[in-house]
Amino acid sequence: MSLIVQKYGGTSVGSPERIRKVAARVSHYHAQGDQIVVVVSAMSGVTDNLIKLAKEIMPLPNEREMDMLLATGEQTTIALTAIALHALKVPAVSLTGAQAGIVTDGVHTKARIQNITPDRVHELLDARNVVIVAGFQGQTNEGQITTLGRGGSDLTAIALAAALKADLCQIYTDVDGVYTADPRLVPGARKLEEISYDEMLELASLGAKVMQSRSVEFAKKFGVIFEVRSSLNDNPGTIVKEEAKNMEDVVVRGVSLDKNQAKVTLVAVPDQPGVAARILKAIGEAHINVDMIVQNISHGSGKPTDLSFTVDKPDLLKAEKLIDSLKPDIGFGRVIATDNIAKLSIVGVGMKSHTGVAGKMFDALAREGVNIEMISTSEIKVSVVVDLAKAEQAMRAVHAAFLGNPKAT
Amino acid sequence: MSLIVQKYGGTSVGSPERIRKVAARVSHYHAQGDQIVVVVSAMSGVTDNLIKLAKEIMPLPNEREMDMLLATGEQTTIALTAIALHALKVPAVSLTGAQAGIVTDGVHTKARIQNITPDRVHELLDARNVVIVAGFQGQTNEGQITTLGRGGSDLTAIALAAALKADLCQIYTDVDGVYTADPRLVPGARKLEEISYDEMLELASLGAKVMQSRSVEFAKKFGVIFEVRSSLNDNPGTIVKEEAKNMEDVVVRGVSLDKNQAKVTLVAVPDQPGVAARILKAIGEAHINVDMIVQNISHGSGKPTDLSFTVDKPDLLKAEKLIDSLKPDIGFGRVIATDNIAKLSIVGVGMKSHTGVAGKMFDALAREGVNIEMISTSEIKVSVVVDLAKAEQAMRAVHAAFLGNPKAT
Repeated sequence: MSLIVQKYGGTSVGSPERIRKVAARVSHYHAQGDQIVVVVSAMSGVTDNLIKLAKEIMPLPNEREMDMLLATGEQTTIALTAIALHALKVPAVSLTGAQAGIVTDGVHTKARIQNITPDRVHELLDARNVVIVAGFQGQTNEGQITTLGRGGSDLTAIALAAALKADLCQIYTDVDGVYTADPRLVPGARKLEEISYDEMLELASLGAKVMQSRSVEFAKKFGVIFEVRSSLNDNPGTIVKEEAKNMEDVVVRGVSLDKNQAKVTLVAVPDQPGVAARILKAIGEAHINVDMIVQNISHGSGKPTDLSFTVDKPDLLKAEKLIDSLKPDIGFGRVIATDNIAKLSIVGVGMKSHTGVAGKMFDALAREGVNIEMISTSEIKVSVVVDLAKAEQAMRAVHAAFLGNPKAT
Repeated sequence: MSLIVQKYGGTSVGSPERIRKVAARVSHYHAQGDQIVVVVSAMSGVTDNLIKLAKEIMPLPNEREMDMLLATGEQTTIALTAIALHALKVPAVSLTGAQAGIVTDGVHTKARIQNITPDRVHELLDARNVVIVAGFQGQTNEGQITTLGRGGSDLTAIALAAALKADLCQIYTDVDGVYTADPRLVPGARKLEEISYDEMLELASLGAKVMQSRSVEFAKKFGVIFEVRSSLNDNPGTIVKEEAKNMEDVVVRGVSLDKNQAKVTLVAVPDQPGVAARILKAIGEAHINVDMIVQNISHGSGKPTDLSFTVDKPDLLKAEKLIDSLKPDIGFGRVIATDNIAKLSIVGVGMKSHTGVAGKMFDALAREGVNIEMISTSEIKVSVVVDLAKAEQAMRAVHAAFLGNPKAT
């Protein structure tokens, strides 16, 4: 007997018909004697409709009330999924995030899971129920309803798998797994059989839409092996797990493109200790995620320098306003903000033991006439910011350079 | 400073625009320095849509899961109402039934409030917030989400008013108050300025759609004076309160018609002690509400007799099946079930001290050629079951006989 956590996204539960299909799949596993926990998102479109309703009333609604509002989306799905299982004579009980023992901090709309007390889930599983848990939500110690932000349902699934010591965690989505690149943009892209947490993490943080990085981080931290697979067929997906020795044979695992980034450049920032820290701390405190940060050394001690960083596109206006408010205090020059960029990245644990990877990437870009605006590297990835208009062309060129050969995986 | 509980029904919060209007009204009271608790229903149509979704998946969905599902309706409204108040710069916090401290028993879809611990509501009020509470829902001591059944939001408002020792409880609805009869059916019907709990109770239980009897019972038990009024205008409504001496001057306060009843007749029931009790106990245990019960004496000791009773129309099939299952054990004859009836009633505390009221009613019916199928009386009401086809005509005749004179109230 295995304990399996399955997560189904909004598209997979987008209609009563699809919920019935999810129930059929769950029922199949249940019939084999496995214990099943199902985590579901809101039906596709529901969350957007709720947001629209709220914004009709007020453009910037209070975040605590947005959590109260949005939590209803997943609550609706869990009840309907339980009912669909009952229709198949499978015992099933739905639980809200709070009922499943998911405790978060109090940062509304972007809460973090602090701990999970899965006693009730275990009890229900032991009584042979399928337990259906609302993804994306939790409750503070004070009983406030919270939501976990983007990708929150994946996080719920991974965190529950960790807390329940599940044997398997399956993330069902509308794609077959993790690809070497987005197949809609790169015709030669191929599905990967497995990928390391670190590679997945980089791909996630780099905009591959399969999963948010926080869920992968959580899985890595707690050693939760999970599979990303499709709810539309029975094909095996991609296994995400700790890095194995042979994984390093492949230099580049995948190429990703993130069009959701925007760039902010502060011109002529005083070259004094602590200035960049103050700017980025203020941005962090406003809960704006900063991704790439580039600061060149100044041309001579004490001379001002430029500071560039990227933020999520929707946060650009908020970031700009915040930066403006810091200007009198810190005394930098102009602020240049643009959302006309994209971030292109290559990822692979094999980079650690291979040289010349960045050079090969830049060469591929140069041959396409693509200008590089920012560069950022880690042990297992190289990212560049390029002009949005040339981004897809650049991606195909880079994929061809590293992964053009179908045997590469 | 007064503490006011206001309840708004589904029509009053049926769109973002209407929610804004509710917020404007609430804001007006708040500006006067009053403490305001707002109880809201699901937006009109939402509950029906959720039920439809569930029934698409399974015709008879599990009641615990229906509660999980339906509770989202009110939760959506409280968040939107809070946001609408924020838009008017009024501090407001929404609470689910559970968060507001409403504890119920575990009878899903028809739960009863067991107690309310309104500490959190008081805290929020003391900090000058408008507190918006989800009507219709609560939580068991074990943390299961429950709903209170039909008219549940009224009950939430009345029960909160009692627990908070509110100065005033206003039930906002889409009618101006309580009328001598449904004005859509009886052109001469007039709005009442006040009415006693007992009269309101009879009217409610008799199908006047303004309020469910359980809410009025609760108000009577805890002495909560409340006003039924319209959310569409500023007209004063009808005050519902303990009976006052001068109320008895009016013999008949109102006439009501309930088309939601169905009749079950058990033919040739053995005339032995305890038989009727066994039948009605079984029905009660199935949570089917029985309203009128009529059993004629048998024509000679020990001879079988007929037993008739009425149930809510939607429960008729369930009741019939249940009765059939009792047949082998109890040994009665045929079962006749029909939903082709209506119940017509006159109500007034003045009946206690006036004679000939029933006779006058039967006389009015006879003159219209309306046959009386069942009769049931209490101290302050007379009800008759009549043919559905003649029900409205009968109602107008009875209203004319007792309340035809505009000075009657």
